[in-house]
Amino acid sequence: MGEEIAPLDKTLGRVLSGDIVSPEDLPGFPRTVVDGYAIRAKDSFGATESLPALLEIVGEVGMGQVPSMTVAAGQAVKISTGGMVPKGADGVVMVEYCHLMDQTTVEVSRAISPQENVIQPDDDFKKGAVVLRKGWKLRSQDVGVLAGLGVTEVTVYRKPRVAIISTGDEVIPVQEKPKPGQVRDINTYTLSAFCTKESAEPVPLGLCRDDFEQLRNMLLKGLETADTVWISGGSSVGTRDLTLKVFESIEGTELLVHGISISPGKPTIIARKGATAVFGLPGHTASAMVVAEVFLAPFLARLGGETTFGQRLQNRVPARLSRNIESASGRDDFIRVRLIQGDGEWIAEPIFGKSGLISTLVEADGLLRIDRNTEGLYQGQQVEVMKFKQI
Amino acid sequence: MGEEIAPLDKTLGRVLSGDIVSPEDLPGFPRTVVDGYAIRAKDSFGATESLPALLEIVGEVGMGQVPSMTVAAGQAVKISTGGMVPKGADGVVMVEYCHLMDQTTVEVSRAISPQENVIQPDDDFKKGAVVLRKGWKLRSQDVGVLAGLGVTEVTVYRKPRVAIISTGDEVIPVQEKPKPGQVRDINTYTLSAFCTKESAEPVPLGLCRDDFEQLRNMLLKGLETADTVWISGGSSVGTRDLTLKVFESIEGTELLVHGISISPGKPTIIARKGATAVFGLPGHTASAMVVAEVFLAPFLARLGGETTFGQRLQNRVPARLSRNIESASGRDDFIRVRLIQGDGEWIAEPIFGKSGLISTLVEADGLLRIDRNTEGLYQGQQVEVMKFKQI
Repeated sequence: MGEEIAPLDKTLGRVLSGDIVSPEDLPGFPRTVVDGYAIRAKDSFGATESLPALLEIVGEVGMGQVPSMTVAAGQAVKISTGGMVPKGADGVVMVEYCHLMDQTTVEVSRAISPQENVIQPDDDFKKGAVVLRKGWKLRSQDVGVLAGLGVTEVTVYRKPRVAIISTGDEVIPVQEKPKPGQVRDINTYTLSAFCTKESAEPVPLGLCRDDFEQLRNMLLKGLETADTVWISGGSSVGTRDLTLKVFESIEGTELLVHGISISPGKPTIIARKGATAVFGLPGHTASAMVVAEVFLAPFLARLGGETTFGQRLQNRVPARLSRNIESASGRDDFIRVRLIQGDGEWIAEPIFGKSGLISTLVEADGLLRIDRNTEGLYQGQQVEVMKFKQI
Repeated sequence: MGEEIAPLDKTLGRVLSGDIVSPEDLPGFPRTVVDGYAIRAKDSFGATESLPALLEIVGEVGMGQVPSMTVAAGQAVKISTGGMVPKGADGVVMVEYCHLMDQTTVEVSRAISPQENVIQPDDDFKKGAVVLRKGWKLRSQDVGVLAGLGVTEVTVYRKPRVAIISTGDEVIPVQEKPKPGQVRDINTYTLSAFCTKESAEPVPLGLCRDDFEQLRNMLLKGLETADTVWISGGSSVGTRDLTLKVFESIEGTELLVHGISISPGKPTIIARKGATAVFGLPGHTASAMVVAEVFLAPFLARLGGETTFGQRLQNRVPARLSRNIESASGRDDFIRVRLIQGDGEWIAEPIFGKSGLISTLVEADGLLRIDRNTEGLYQGQQVEVMKFKQI
């Protein structure tokens, strides 16, 4: 992806296209994290409730101000959370351990160690330090760090644009009432929402009939306008062959994958023209969504410049399986599961039903992968669920 | 919240304000999930590779068409995935088990049971069934279901509007260069991003000095324009007292909570005026963010009409603790942790550092709660990490 500039308040979820280096020390001055009195720590050594230290109050630090006074031995300066610790002082004793004797005398009933309750000028970030790395996807706290450093505009990767084509003579626009044999165009909407959820920009190109010329023209348009093209609908042998023929007709197109050993999602096609990946997805929504979760989510992350795949993996939730599941070997099975709160752990409950049903996906909280080399999983077994991300 | 209408392509992440009832059967016709031949299942009974059934091909189903023919005993009709199963047929045998003898004869080498590979007209959703419930936050697959049912406009709850006020004489706009003692306004940006992440609409009202009249006016403005008001900055005794005085000065304001037994986040204030909740948050970004994750995320979900708290809880990831952590009893401690992939499980590694540092939050993947009744956790102990949500 190319780069673009995002204003600070629009950076949530965007991916950094370069390292953020701290232009200055943060917070930049010694800062107290408590309310209390700035003192020389040494003056409090040995202080207890029965034998408090008596210190002379020589002033108060105003918030946002550079204190004018210096704290000498035996002196204390009143200070509020976030205030700048005055010169001479090397610690702040919490107000809870201070007892005001009169206007100018405070009794300190607890010893503090040097630097206690004080953030040093470069404790958060040192000038020149790499604060956030290229490829990092910004969370709310990361946006806060940028604010703290005065970074008001951030260079991020452009969001990947995904051209979406929904094919099939049986598919009609959602606004229309299907006649028997027809279905509404679900995939344009699920795949667009999926792109949004994965921080990409959907570019729905609309419906396409099972027609060579029309599909070819739409694919060419997609290749021109987007960073990747997704064609859904090629589940049947006929439409798959049509899609392949269209790929072949476009010069420079290379077929990379023709069928994947997964279920559902087997008839998936992957091709490329130059650096642009083209995916032929199953027409069944449930199958297309499984392929999207398993392949297209990491693909979009990579395309969008994200280098923090580990983070994404953390959407994998350990759970215990509620019942045996059989599985044909030779392919990875992706089982839709519900996550139920068990006794201190999650229970993964498989949702059965024909793979063409959308309803099973609606009931599911995530997917469970059964490896191609196993013939199933046992009740009570510890498994890892790929939880659907919610925005 | 009130309701508003969202067009289908803008419903991702929105919360339904009413049940979605299926206006029709889905898919509405008997539909094959495989390529093959629609037959009477009975005709295949006993068929094997060595003793195949011979059937007469009487036509082909066009995609999106109502088949004109009826399948009689001994007959077969060619059909592609997603096609409408013709009358008379009660199952589809996969093309892999069919061998074409000549133009009109197919050899079937495997028996199918009645309804095999066929989705019934109401298998996905029955007319009148509740498909998605009020309070459900829509995911991509849910958007797909709405598309499938022809629901092009959806009634959802309005997003909660959150007025954000950042207080403190030491706080300056992010565009400015802080003098010693001053800090840039981090909280407006973290809290705004937090709202966006939690599907709420931030309304930043800007900076406020530690001044009774100014804070009062800004709070009144927030109460007028937003559904909840968040004031950050009242960590010190002085500013907290100021905030409390301002609350008291507004008629009908009720103080609900004044300090919470958590760390960080203790000086949190909760008040309300009528149905509008007002939160006084700590000034330290790290503390404010902990309060936000622990209290404000579920609060916003509730305010936004979400009834699917269980889903949200699934952001809790089981992990094993990498080392002992001490904790003061009498308060819940929220420890920032990194999640590291261990051997088939997550390892939670505490991040230590002064609570006022933002850097510790940037390094963290989530929070670990230590209950007020325990004095710490042991290395190797099984814990649950509240993972920060990423958008």
